[in-house]
Amino acid sequence: MKDIEAMTQQRSINGQRLMHQLQTLAGVGRTHSNACCRLALTEEDRQGRDLVVSWMKELGMVVSIDPIGNIFGARAGSRPELAPIMTGSHIDTVRTGGAYDGNYGVLAGLEVVATLNDVQYTTERTLVVGIFTNEEGARFAPDMLGSLVYVGGMALDEALKVKATDGAVLGEELIRIGYNGKTALGKHKPHAFIELHIEQGPLLDIEGIKIGAVENLQGISWQELTIVGQSNHAGTTPMHLRHDAGYACSSVSTFVRELTRRMGGNQVATVGHVVLTPNLINVIAAQATLTVDLRNTDEALLRQAEQALNDFLISLAESEGVTITSRRLARFEPVTFDAGLTDRIAHHANSLGLSHRRMTSGAGHDAQMLARICPTSMIFVPSVGGISHNPAEHTEAADLISGANVLLATLTELAH
Amino acid sequence: MKDIEAMTQQRSINGQRLMHQLQTLAGVGRTHSNACCRLALTEEDRQGRDLVVSWMKELGMVVSIDPIGNIFGARAGSRPELAPIMTGSHIDTVRTGGAYDGNYGVLAGLEVVATLNDVQYTTERTLVVGIFTNEEGARFAPDMLGSLVYVGGMALDEALKVKATDGAVLGEELIRIGYNGKTALGKHKPHAFIELHIEQGPLLDIEGIKIGAVENLQGISWQELTIVGQSNHAGTTPMHLRHDAGYACSSVSTFVRELTRRMGGNQVATVGHVVLTPNLINVIAAQATLTVDLRNTDEALLRQAEQALNDFLISLAESEGVTITSRRLARFEPVTFDAGLTDRIAHHANSLGLSHRRMTSGAGHDAQMLARICPTSMIFVPSVGGISHNPAEHTEAADLISGANVLLATLTELAH
Repeated sequence: MKDIEAMTQQRSINGQRLMHQLQTLAGVGRTHSNACCRLALTEEDRQGRDLVVSWMKELGMVVSIDPIGNIFGARAGSRPELAPIMTGSHIDTVRTGGAYDGNYGVLAGLEVVATLNDVQYTTERTLVVGIFTNEEGARFAPDMLGSLVYVGGMALDEALKVKATDGAVLGEELIRIGYNGKTALGKHKPHAFIELHIEQGPLLDIEGIKIGAVENLQGISWQELTIVGQSNHAGTTPMHLRHDAGYACSSVSTFVRELTRRMGGNQVATVGHVVLTPNLINVIAAQATLTVDLRNTDEALLRQAEQALNDFLISLAESEGVTITSRRLARFEPVTFDAGLTDRIAHHANSLGLSHRRMTSGAGHDAQMLARICPTSMIFVPSVGGISHNPAEHTEAADLISGANVLLATLTELAH
Repeated sequence: MKDIEAMTQQRSINGQRLMHQLQTLAGVGRTHSNACCRLALTEEDRQGRDLVVSWMKELGMVVSIDPIGNIFGARAGSRPELAPIMTGSHIDTVRTGGAYDGNYGVLAGLEVVATLNDVQYTTERTLVVGIFTNEEGARFAPDMLGSLVYVGGMALDEALKVKATDGAVLGEELIRIGYNGKTALGKHKPHAFIELHIEQGPLLDIEGIKIGAVENLQGISWQELTIVGQSNHAGTTPMHLRHDAGYACSSVSTFVRELTRRMGGNQVATVGHVVLTPNLINVIAAQATLTVDLRNTDEALLRQAEQALNDFLISLAESEGVTITSRRLARFEPVTFDAGLTDRIAHHANSLGLSHRRMTSGAGHDAQMLARICPTSMIFVPSVGGISHNPAEHTEAADLISGANVLLATLTELAH
């Protein structure tokens, strides 16, 4: 252990090399508006994959690809009989993606390998850097599909049949870009998994803290509500005779805001999507479609929020004389990460003189799937202004380098 | 007077003839979904105009057309030096119009003339049936444009330059369909104006009352609000750090509903149009555009409602950390019709054994423009279910015939 402590404290990753690789990958699929557009399994995604695979090979890693297109680069340890330590993330992006979301976790993993190569340090356990297919869900649903299939949460057959928003079939796209691999699903089953990611939220940036040791991940409840009222003239219909789908829709939005006030804690709620029909200034809306996004780190509280919403919808339908139907779009239970791993991340941040805090992930990540099969945690670095999925997504280079150094220390300790 | 009383009580209009003409006109511009589509100054509108003008001529009326395309059919009285009595409405429709909105007022006017012809009764004052251009405002803004120009509320030059939603220019469209007339604007300045119209609201239908004697017309205040907040991740952004344009938009909608509860009376308020940006389930809306439609028959109360909304917007912008800008789309003061004329309408309904009530018009009508230059009132008949601007718009034939008989009695009394 002493050697490792000494190594991690003396050694640090090569920040210039990491930043150069991040910028090079960000150039693949760059749009006129300076965004990254590498939607899963498109030609741009293929180019990004080819580039990162070539870097893995340059580092002497053994590259394998599984049937859902997940890529694994392995740096052999001295005791190959032990389960490996895995890190990684994704390199697909949304249509208007930034340079760091996902890519940072993958390339920082490679930078850890490069750093260990530089000092010719061989860990006991093999180190694996994973790249998971279709994390964003911007082209194929569900999101985090590659890691979900990897951990056995979705059948391969079913996943290969998934249709893209553009009509393409996932399995056919994998063949087209040459990433329909032969490596058995679930190979490299990790001893532990650590994902390094930008926060995609404002907390670290606002508080001026450099490292987030992620202890859990919010549960997500997505519903689409359809409210059917009665279209009528906005001037001639007395208020007491109205069945206004637009008003009912607004009431849901203000109710969930009030619900978060009442529940407190980390309960959040968002109505981000609203469509009224006929959507005219002088016509009472006949129909409203809206989405409700509820999240909490506590499953019991999340269920309580869902129940409160449901009760409200029943009384609203009654009082406004409308019908309300709900369709579930997504439901993930909260994930609690491995407390021991989160402790080690906090410890290493501290050792490196970096301010840090325990925190919750509000976004979904591949790590939440890996947590089903092995001890898992995540390291967050600040997102300036909390902005992501946007070309304005930014993290200071110094913060990206600090995060990679925490990853180096944590992985080296875990792999010995 | 005795002759007239006798005539109106013995005579009634020919219901079969009226219904036949209504159905014939409804066939012009009929769509696959059985709606009427005669948008102002289109080819279909030209066909409708040509048809009604031919009927006017068959009745021996002198037809004149003014430079904004308003059509006037005159049945000469025995004392042509006296100002005429005018009735009328419009024959343009919305894209999904019904058979009666507007058309009923025009064709019932012709039916009154036909009835007087049948009995060879000559009134002292000339009777004029007017057809006003672009009442609906579905193709050119503002609505009630023809009657507005007729009464001098909008300059002819300005009106001729108005562009349609399809890019056409109003003056050019008038020439194209051959309705750029030479008759001086404002000719036939009436001694009184009576407009017969379907209610386009549910009150008469719900209460089972046959005739509405319209005593006033709501003032209208239309605003478009643009709310700018900050787009952010729906999972990772704590509630207290949100600047949610979608939530703010909903708050406006629930506030105006609450405002109508507080104010009571005939104050109505509608948020019928909402557009969120980016309108995604998991993104806090960066921007919302919405419309607020406020109406009241009392100008002071309407101003009070506008002021209350304005105060609310200021505190909402402050509490949610958003900016809210308002653009006025329309503002009409309430119109009070001539109390004496409304009394006569009620009197004749009563004489004809028809149930009746005093009421307010919640919709705009050409009569509100005519009220600027002469004593004016309106006669309403029930709209089944209050439905209008919809192919399902319906009024029972018996009710249409009753309304036309009230018009016959009222016009005959006014013209002697």
